[in-house]
Amino acid sequence: MLAGLAEIAEVGRDSRRSGYSRHLWQAADLELRSWFVERAERLGLDVETDRNGNLWAWWGQPGTDAVVTGSHLDSVPGGGAYDGPLGVVSSLEAIARLQASGFVASRPCAILMFAEEEGSRFGVACLGSRLLAGAIDADQARALTDRDGVTLAEAARTVGVDPAHLGVDRDALARIGLFIELHVEQGRGLIDLGQPVAVASSILAHGRWRLTVTGQGNHAGATTMAERRDPMVAAAAAIVGVQTAARNRSGTRATIGRIEAIPGGTNVIASRVDAWLDARAETDEETRLLVADIAARAQQAAAQNGCSATLTEESWAGAVQFHPGLRERFAQALGQVPELATGAGHDAGVLAARVPSAMLFVRNPTGISHAPEEFAEVADCVAGVDALELLLRELL
Amino acid sequence: MLAGLAEIAEVGRDSRRSGYSRHLWQAADLELRSWFVERAERLGLDVETDRNGNLWAWWGQPGTDAVVTGSHLDSVPGGGAYDGPLGVVSSLEAIARLQASGFVASRPCAILMFAEEEGSRFGVACLGSRLLAGAIDADQARALTDRDGVTLAEAARTVGVDPAHLGVDRDALARIGLFIELHVEQGRGLIDLGQPVAVASSILAHGRWRLTVTGQGNHAGATTMAERRDPMVAAAAAIVGVQTAARNRSGTRATIGRIEAIPGGTNVIASRVDAWLDARAETDEETRLLVADIAARAQQAAAQNGCSATLTEESWAGAVQFHPGLRERFAQALGQVPELATGAGHDAGVLAARVPSAMLFVRNPTGISHAPEEFAEVADCVAGVDALELLLRELL
Repeated sequence: MLAGLAEIAEVGRDSRRSGYSRHLWQAADLELRSWFVERAERLGLDVETDRNGNLWAWWGQPGTDAVVTGSHLDSVPGGGAYDGPLGVVSSLEAIARLQASGFVASRPCAILMFAEEEGSRFGVACLGSRLLAGAIDADQARALTDRDGVTLAEAARTVGVDPAHLGVDRDALARIGLFIELHVEQGRGLIDLGQPVAVASSILAHGRWRLTVTGQGNHAGATTMAERRDPMVAAAAAIVGVQTAARNRSGTRATIGRIEAIPGGTNVIASRVDAWLDARAETDEETRLLVADIAARAQQAAAQNGCSATLTEESWAGAVQFHPGLRERFAQALGQVPELATGAGHDAGVLAARVPSAMLFVRNPTGISHAPEEFAEVADCVAGVDALELLLRELL
Repeated sequence: MLAGLAEIAEVGRDSRRSGYSRHLWQAADLELRSWFVERAERLGLDVETDRNGNLWAWWGQPGTDAVVTGSHLDSVPGGGAYDGPLGVVSSLEAIARLQASGFVASRPCAILMFAEEEGSRFGVACLGSRLLAGAIDADQARALTDRDGVTLAEAARTVGVDPAHLGVDRDALARIGLFIELHVEQGRGLIDLGQPVAVASSILAHGRWRLTVTGQGNHAGATTMAERRDPMVAAAAAIVGVQTAARNRSGTRATIGRIEAIPGGTNVIASRVDAWLDARAETDEETRLLVADIAARAQQAAAQNGCSATLTEESWAGAVQFHPGLRERFAQALGQVPELATGAGHDAGVLAARVPSAMLFVRNPTGISHAPEEFAEVADCVAGVDALELLLRELL
C-alpha cells in the first residue's frame, strides 16, 4: 500500500459491514480532512476550504488557468481503501516529487479534495463538485437530509460552513484551467488489457431514483394471504424487474443496493417499502428508457399486490465525454496508454461540463469496487503516480 | 378510548413510522411500567418485578392457585394503541369494579404485565412468558442482541434486572392457577360474526427465521449485469417465493416485514441481505413444510444469482389449543359468546403449555393490527371489561 494510504488505513473502519464508512463531516471524514491539511502543509501548500466544503491545497500562489488535480476521501458504506484516497494520495506524492526534483511550475497548481463524492450521507453523488459547478440548485441541496433527518444546511453549520454560501462558486471555477483526477479502476478493463494505467474516455449517463411502494400495514399472523396489500412483495417483484429490465437492454446497469421496510417489524406486514435505484447506460436517452421500463414494471408489481408505486428522481448525471484535447495530449505524453470508458461517476465528470477535465485509472486486480475487496498493487499505484507526475510536468 | 388507554396515549408515539414504538426497557417502556405500577398501587395492589422483568400486581396476598389476568404494554415498531395495553387496562378496570362492588375474592388474584411480548427489541416474541415458563433457554436468551448489538443480559443489567437470574421461574409458575388474557382481535373474525367479544379456541403454529443471502459486493456502475452476484435480486426473488409458497398451501401465512441490505449504499451492489421470515400454519407440521418450501425457493433464487442462502430458526411456537375446561366454563358464564381461532401469538399461548390458559378477544372494526389503524370502539372495550369482570367473579 502507498505510504499515504497506509497512514489513513485505520480511519473510519466499519467493523459491522467491514471496509470503510467515511461520510461527509462525520468523525472519520473530519479526521481525514485534518490529515489532508497536515500532509499538504508539510509540502508547503496553502489549504483553504471553499464555500461548499471542498478543500484546495495551493502549490504557490492561487490564480487562474491553474492545473488542478485531486479526488475525494469519503467512501460508500463499507467501501474499499482506494476509491477516492488513491487520487488524493497520488496528487500529494506527485507534487512532492516535483518539489524534490526542483521543478518550477509556470502555472498555478492545486490539489482539490471534493466533499461527499459518494453521496453516502445526503444521497446525491458528487455533491461537492455539483455545488461548485452549479450542477445542483443550492436550495435543493440545503434541504437534503441524511438518514437521521439532519439537513445539509444543519450539518454544514455544525462544521463551520455557512449554508447560505453553498452553491455555484464562480471564483473557484474561474481558477481551474484544467482538472485531472486519478482514480482506482472500478471494473475489469485494465485486467483484460494487462496494463497498469489508462486514460478515461467517457462516463455512462447515470442517476438515482427512490422507489416508494405503499400498501397496508397489518399483522403478519392474523392477516390471510388473500387479504394482504403487502408492499414488500410488490417491491421484491419490482426488484426482480429491475434486473430483467437492465438485462434486456444491452450495456445498461441497474441496481437496488439500499432498501427500507417501514415499520420494519418481523411480525408486521410493512405499510411502505422504500428502495433506491441506481441506473446507468451509455447515453442519456437509453438511461431514461431503462428507468421508464423499470417504473412500468414497478407499477405492475404494485398493482398486482394491491399497492401503489412511485419512482422519484433524486439525482441525474448525463453521459460525459472527457476533453478530447487533453486525452490526445495524455496519449502523446504517456505513450502506449489505453483509453477506457467507465460506468462509475466522478467529480471529474461533473467538472467536465465547465472546464477541460480528464482522468487516469489505475488497475484494480479484483475488478471489485465499493467493497472491501477493492485493491491496487503498489507497483500499479506507483505507475499511476509516475503518469500523474509526468502529466503535471508537461502541463505546468 | 377507555380512560386507561387515554392516559398512555402519548407514550412512545413514533413520529417517523406513525403509531407507537414501545420496546423493552427503552424510554417508552419504562414510562409505561411506571404508569402501571402507579395505577396498580392506586388500587392497593402490591407490585413486584419477577426475575425475568415481568410485573405482577397482587390483589391481596400472593399465593398458589391464583387467578392471573393481564397482557403486555410493549408494541411492534409503529404499532397500534390496543395490542397489549387493552388487556392490561381492562384487567385494572375489572379489579377496580370488583373492589368498588365490595367483592371479596376467595383465591389469590394478580395482574401480570409481560415483558417483550412482540419481540421487537430482541427478536423473540413472548420473551417474558417464554423465560418465565422455561420455553427458551436462559443462556440463549441472555445472548440475544438488539439492532445496536446490545445483549439482553446487558440491557437487563442497566434496568436493575440481574441477568444471572433470567430463566424458568418455578415459584412464579406455581402460583398461577389459571391465566386469562384479554386482547384486541387482530383479524376480521368478530366483524364477520357481528359480535363484540369472543373466547379464543386456538393459535396457529408460528415462528421466525432469518434468511441470509450472500453474494459479492461491488460497484453499481462499473459492474456489468452479467458479472454480478447480487444478493438483493436473489432475496427479492426469494420474497416473491415466500408469497407463492404461502398462497399454494391453504391456511398458511408467510411474511417478510424486515429486511436489511449490507452495506446499504445506493451505488453499491450489496454483499449480503438479511430478511426475517414470519411463517404460520394450523399445525406444527404444516408450518415446517411451508418453511421447507420457502427455504428451497430461496436456495434456488440464490443459486440463479450466483449467491448462497441460509434460513435459520430464531424462534418457534407450536400450535396451541386453549384449555377446554376454561373455554366451556367461559361459554356457560358469558352466554352467546363465539369461539375464534387466531393467527397471532400471545403470552397466554406460551403459558398454555404449563397452566390452564384462556383468552378473550375484543372486536377490531378495521381488522388491521400491528399498524396505527388498529382500533376498538369504547362500547366493545366496555363489553370486554364486562366479560372479564364476570369471569373473575366466577373464578375468584
